[in-house]
Amino acid sequence: MLSKDLGPEGARGVMVCGEKIFLMRAFGRVNAVQDRCLHRGVRFSARPECFAEGRITCWLHGFTYDVADGKLVDIIAAPGAGLIGKDNLKTYPVQERNGLIFVFVGDMDPPPPLDDDTPPTYLDEDMATEGIARVVNSNWRVACENGNDATHIWIHRESPLIVGGDIALPAGFFIINYEDGVEVIEDTGRKGVISPHGRESHLPCFEPKVEGTPILDIAGKYGTKRVATTVELWMPCGLRVTDFPQPGMTHFEFYTPIDETRHLYVQMLGRKVANEQEAKRFRMEVQALWEPLDLRGFNDEDIFAREHLQEFYQDDDAWLNEQLFQGDVVTLRWRTVCSRWNRGIQWRGPRRLDAHADVARLSTVSQE
Amino acid sequence: MLSKDLGPEGARGVMVCGEKIFLMRAFGRVNAVQDRCLHRGVRFSARPECFAEGRITCWLHGFTYDVADGKLVDIIAAPGAGLIGKDNLKTYPVQERNGLIFVFVGDMDPPPPLDDDTPPTYLDEDMATEGIARVVNSNWRVACENGNDATHIWIHRESPLIVGGDIALPAGFFIINYEDGVEVIEDTGRKGVISPHGRESHLPCFEPKVEGTPILDIAGKYGTKRVATTVELWMPCGLRVTDFPQPGMTHFEFYTPIDETRHLYVQMLGRKVANEQEAKRFRMEVQALWEPLDLRGFNDEDIFAREHLQEFYQDDDAWLNEQLFQGDVVTLRWRTVCSRWNRGIQWRGPRRLDAHADVARLSTVSQE
Amino acid sequence: MLSKDLGPEGARGVMVCGEKIFLMRAFGRVNAVQDRCLHRGVRFSARPECFAEGRITCWLHGFTYDVADGKLVDIIAAPGAGLIGKDNLKTYPVQERNGLIFVFVGDMDPPPPLDDDTPPTYLDEDMATEGIARVVNSNWRVACENGNDATHIWIHRESPLIVGGDIALPAGFFIINYEDGVEVIEDTGRKGVISPHGRESHLPCFEPKVEGTPILDIAGKYGTKRVATTVELWMPCGLRVTDFPQPGMTHFEFYTPIDETRHLYVQMLGRKVANEQEAKRFRMEVQALWEPLDLRGFNDEDIFAREHLQEFYQDDDAWLNEQLFQGDVVTLRWRTVCSRWNRGIQWRGPRRLDAHADVARLSTVSQE
Repeated sequence: MLSKDLGPEGARGVMVCGEKIFLMRAFGRVNAVQDRCLHRGVRFSARPECFAEGRITCWLHGFTYDVADGKLVDIIAAPGAGLIGKDNLKTYPVQERNGLIFVFVGDMDPPPPLDDDTPPTYLDEDMATEGIARVVNSNWRVACENGNDATHIWIHRESPLIVGGDIALPAGFFIINYEDGVEVIEDTGRKGVISPHGRESHLPCFEPKVEGTPILDIAGKYGTKRVATTVELWMPCGLRVTDFPQPGMTHFEFYTPIDETRHLYVQMLGRKVANEQEAKRFRMEVQALWEPLDLRGFNDEDIFAREHLQEFYQDDDAWLNEQLFQGDVVTLRWRTVCSRWNRGIQWRGPRRLDAHADVARLSTVSQE
Repeated sequence: MLSKDLGPEGARGVMVCGEKIFLMRAFGRVNAVQDRCLHRGVRFSARPECFAEGRITCWLHGFTYDVADGKLVDIIAAPGAGLIGKDNLKTYPVQERNGLIFVFVGDMDPPPPLDDDTPPTYLDEDMATEGIARVVNSNWRVACENGNDATHIWIHRESPLIVGGDIALPAGFFIINYEDGVEVIEDTGRKGVISPHGRESHLPCFEPKVEGTPILDIAGKYGTKRVATTVELWMPCGLRVTDFPQPGMTHFEFYTPIDETRHLYVQMLGRKVANEQEAKRFRMEVQALWEPLDLRGFNDEDIFAREHLQEFYQDDDAWLNEQLFQGDVVTLRWRTVCSRWNRGIQWRGPRRLDAHADVARLSTVSQE
Repeated sequence: MLSKDLGPEGARGVMVCGEKIFLMRAFGRVNAVQDRCLHRGVRFSARPECFAEGRITCWLHGFTYDVADGKLVDIIAAPGAGLIGKDNLKTYPVQERNGLIFVFVGDMDPPPPLDDDTPPTYLDEDMATEGIARVVNSNWRVACENGNDATHIWIHRESPLIVGGDIALPAGFFIINYEDGVEVIEDTGRKGVISPHGRESHLPCFEPKVEGTPILDIAGKYGTKRVATTVELWMPCGLRVTDFPQPGMTHFEFYTPIDETRHLYVQMLGRKVANEQEAKRFRMEVQALWEPLDLRGFNDEDIFAREHLQEFYQDDDAWLNEQLFQGDVVTLRWRTVCSRWNRGIQWRGPRRLDAHADVARLSTVSQE
């Protein structure tokens, strides 16, 4: 989520990959624990209660935890209970970088470097960033494949950003050379696929025709600025477009899975800056100009596309019924990378079976 | 659907028997193709784009098809792609007759004559028709059985059409002779069941009683015009009532399945006319008088009944828990006809398996 | 349901344990039959029609039943039909006592005494009662366990009833002696669990702390009146709290299952009275004062809790993932009682199979 959406004393529940997570700032850091009290399972985020910094108290029975390590430190309604200090919430590794809060939900311990899971340059110290986040009703993989699709830009042809911005965005890029037209990066920690739209491997379509007859009067509408010459998609779910929406700017996207049918669509624009004053100016520019024109005006079309793609891809047999073609070579390469480098299926077993055994014992003795 | 709901340059998505179908007029004819682009499966109807008559272009990547034969004739964003001309959408036989558009969704090729699937006289040249269509939240079989139910007319007893129209509609028809009381037609292309309410086999109940005591003061309310003397239900889903709602008029209904829990309720009134001027006058009369009184005022009670019947019949064991009686002999005959003459379960297998094999090949070669 | 919600000529459909039941007053008594016509299964309650006292007529075909014994006494639209007098609706035992209508949905015949299924004193002749009923979106067992939970009272700490009423309700009761801290009653017809909060087995927490540091300034807020010294939970779903919300009053609750995810939350306050005038005064006092302060203001917190608990307990593995502790000894005792004394799984088989056989015969003969 966006840093700015979690205030200085902020607490909030989010869902990532179907897991309910509770985020809370304490002592200047963001902490993440399961958003479910150990006792009777209610969400802390339903009514967050905090009586001491770094402590979250469950609103139902007063179970109180240290959000840093998840330990049960007290039970307000039952001081001295035997369970205190003996159990703890699941915690999640968190990093806050360049305007975003990153939570790692996988099983690896320690988690891989954040660099491996974000597009290049996003974490750079001199990269100023600003953006928005919203929920989109599609599976996140549908979003990934939409992000670096070379021919889908057809849907953006009448966007004010393009029409009014002196920008040269074609109706599509036709890939005429597979060898040169897509790069697969697998030999570093960061894995991904790069589409060099600006190369000769890609034939831009500036005069759209149907069966030979030109359609629309859009040839004349194209501007002079070449943008989006490189589109990169990085595992697990990060997009980087350079330069976009203007020369000197970078457009980043993250498609974070909420659950099977929704993702959090995080859109961040970046520009290299020399100092905090430039960074501040850039953030104001994004809010005033690029949020309405690019992040909303332009990308709203992508949301429309993803939610309609979802209607098709939610069926089990969609992957059999689709009909990919030459233009989808990037998508095929991406699927290969995903299939080869994904981190496996997460462990979701009943972690509390042994704790439950204690309860069974409790019910047969008179006093702990 | 109604002809008038698809304008001269109209395009619209509908669902029939769970299949998404895209209808588009071109060169004066209605065409029907699958409402799903071959490429990534989005619906054309989400944002229909047409750059040449008879061509539908997918809004997402510019895949363009001939709606008459479904052929992929171009890809705007990728001119010259190898797939062009090599694949095609599924098409559906369509006929437009007397104010309705009929689409055949079965597997038979060629489809059976439209005469076999519509009630008698509906398609007659000199039959003027006018009506409405709306979605009802019940399975279509529930609607069929409601349509020709001899005793359900009890629910219509206080309809303004009856009370104010000098019409003689009893509280019910009690069938006292099974041989004469229902005719099963199976020896022609058109199969169905005819209920001759006007015959002596049917005892109309004009003085409703409960355990011998007259109820309501409705005996005096009945008018002099005998209507609905014959009610016919024809496979697959067409009803014909003669004469109704007035002598000289015919009331037609079609219960087209949308999916398991909804049907399109198409209500058409007909009258034999000598010329187009009479036809026009008749259509105006239906819109001004019979739509509010009959098609809505009177039949809204049937919609109420069907949606409540659905609540019961949606359970698997409803057909075991119902308790039919003498009055339902027509329903039983209808079920026998359906069981004997239905056209089987439709083929829904993955038609694109071989196309998918091409994709697998594509991902292993560098250039097509 | 509440007696006052079913008027003198009242008729209403309710759902209990997933069964649809139709309640109707006739000849001064409440009758209960299945809310589903034998014929085509529609609900009487969708449009109740009554043409003679004690008779319910189905709005669809005029099937008419005696609500006392369920017998099909007539079919308005088909007088003289052979089915009349030969079939009947399922009926349910009903009792109306002290402002509530009790329906027995189990299989036992005769049903157990109502005394066994209600908290002590509720049915007393001199107990005046008044209350409300509403639907809560949680399973009823979640509600039971919330009702007599000794530590959940933490959620009520800022209730106006407590703060403004000179009432001494602690942040929680900590059970320091299991033997004395809970009584299990199993040797009478009425089974249940009693929590004697007022005994020395329970340590009230009047100075809530987190890790030794006092929190909130609530110590001073506590009043002088000791209430809720005894909390009892009785099978199947009745709670009794004495005294509450004031000395001399009893707070009763019933958590009647509607279906798996909803229960009817019936809240009744009681006070012993000497005559009808005192009873009337008490009912007015409840409506004016205790309904807003206790039944709504105070107990709304419990509804909040139950609906959040439901989110957790609706998952199959919740009972494995919960982590009970000392404070939950009452819950554990209650579960043991439920497991030992529940009346088994109800018979839901197709009772109409033999009636269906009649229909099969009907379809092969020409006349009954």
